[in-house]
Amino acid sequence: MTTHFRLVLEYDGSEFAGWQVQAGGERTVQGVLAEAVRRACGAEPEVVGAGRTDAGVHALGQVAGVRVETRLAPPELARALNALLPPDVAVRAAEAAPAGWHPRFDARAKRYRYAIWNGRARSPVRARFAYWVPRPLDVGAMATAAPALVGCRDFRCFQASGSGVEQTVRTLASVSVEGRAGGDVRVEVEGDGFLRHMVRNLVGTLLQVGLGERPADSLAGLLEARDRRLAGPTAPACGLTLVAVRYDEGFPRNPEELPPPALDAADPLG
Amino acid sequence: MTTHFRLVLEYDGSEFAGWQVQAGGERTVQGVLAEAVRRACGAEPEVVGAGRTDAGVHALGQVAGVRVETRLAPPELARALNALLPPDVAVRAAEAAPAGWHPRFDARAKRYRYAIWNGRARSPVRARFAYWVPRPLDVGAMATAAPALVGCRDFRCFQASGSGVEQTVRTLASVSVEGRAGGDVRVEVEGDGFLRHMVRNLVGTLLQVGLGERPADSLAGLLEARDRRLAGPTAPACGLTLVAVRYDEGFPRNPEELPPPALDAADPLG
Repeated sequence: MTTHFRLVLEYDGSEFAGWQVQAGGERTVQGVLAEAVRRACGAEPEVVGAGRTDAGVHALGQVAGVRVETRLAPPELARALNALLPPDVAVRAAEAAPAGWHPRFDARAKRYRYAIWNGRARSPVRARFAYWVPRPLDVGAMATAAPALVGCRDFRCFQASGSGVEQTVRTLASVSVEGRAGGDVRVEVEGDGFLRHMVRNLVGTLLQVGLGERPADSLAGLLEARDRRLAGPTAPACGLTLVAVRYDEGFPRNPEELPPPALDAADPLG
Repeated sequence: MTTHFRLVLEYDGSEFAGWQVQAGGERTVQGVLAEAVRRACGAEPEVVGAGRTDAGVHALGQVAGVRVETRLAPPELARALNALLPPDVAVRAAEAAPAGWHPRFDARAKRYRYAIWNGRARSPVRARFAYWVPRPLDVGAMATAAPALVGCRDFRCFQASGSGVEQTVRTLASVSVEGRAGGDVRVEVEGDGFLRHMVRNLVGTLLQVGLGERPADSLAGLLEARDRRLAGPTAPACGLTLVAVRYDEGFPRNPEELPPPALDAADPLG
């Protein structure tokens, strides 16, 4: 019997060449997931992601649809996969997919987080999951600039150069900037869809605002110009995490995931 | 001119055989630090740590004294070392050591943190810095049990078997347990000194309380029995971080270190 599963995946993207299987055989999340399903079920699966993540990008809540012939129930498949998958990828939740559900076409929104470490010195414990920006950031200016990106806008200026997509209008439900100069800074973006490199280019542009290289009130004009060359550089992949994918029935819930205490809220060096 | 520096160090201990230089030439934090100082200053340094950390144990605020012949001022030395050190270790702060200061003998207190991931599934993004305990923890019972460990006590039951230290009385200023079942749980311990494996054995014992394998009110009696065989197992090194070392003038301040936002406080899967 072929079953269609919906999986929520967490991965540390540092050692992956992104989500999507590559012609050259690079190590990809889709590839190691398909291999684990093959071993768990003894049958060839079809694996479809909610979206591609680039090389080095992480996920707390990537969603995949897996079609495979098996008698395993969703919790059994999750346990089997977590035993077979490498340490840097895990299944957080598994359920039978709703009838007719498609992981990509039915995705209504995605939430991304971009982590920045603004300390003057490198932080080894943050290195895998945050981009180090040593010059002090004006986080207030970044937070002031961000709302100009919310709403239904043409984001052509943030599309990777060379990307051929012509329809570049997307809707962002929220863009928030939190944190403090000298410490951890976080940009969170939620939207109905994203162009290639859009979050990283948006963050690279907000960082220019934070560094005083671009006025905080300049983003509306930047969007109107629709010119990639006028926007900021692409922020590195290591800081980016796909937090969640939302479908009509809401973000998939995972009862075991709770907000952790801050990394070092009680750090006496603070 | 020989200068005595006081350095605050951060490291990801995953790929280190601990702090202390080993006879077998294993990769140690002390070893890579000495090598970086040698290259930065062109002279042989003496490197002394506030304390040893075991293989796999991390640090946000290890303290080291470095004596070396150099004309570099502390900020220059810090920058030079951060350029020379490998990605998993960095200098967070550097200053001229107070006259007569000794990193180990003058340490008045240390603060350790032990991170536990209590989700049912492995968490790839937490794997390097937290111990995965999949069975639900009674965090309230752990918090109830912890205060019995505070004060001037004989901690022989938590000393690594085979350790020859005879004077096993230490004073813990605080032991706290925070977090929630199914999520991130954190044990923080501050004390004037620690026996070998003491924090990890203490955490292994608190975890037995959290798993219902040991009564929450049994720790006073356990301490009195002074028998390592009656305490819990040694919790793995990966969860442990040396947060800070305090001297008479207080914990070294590091102006760039601020409490970060929680890892995924806004995670819609929560």
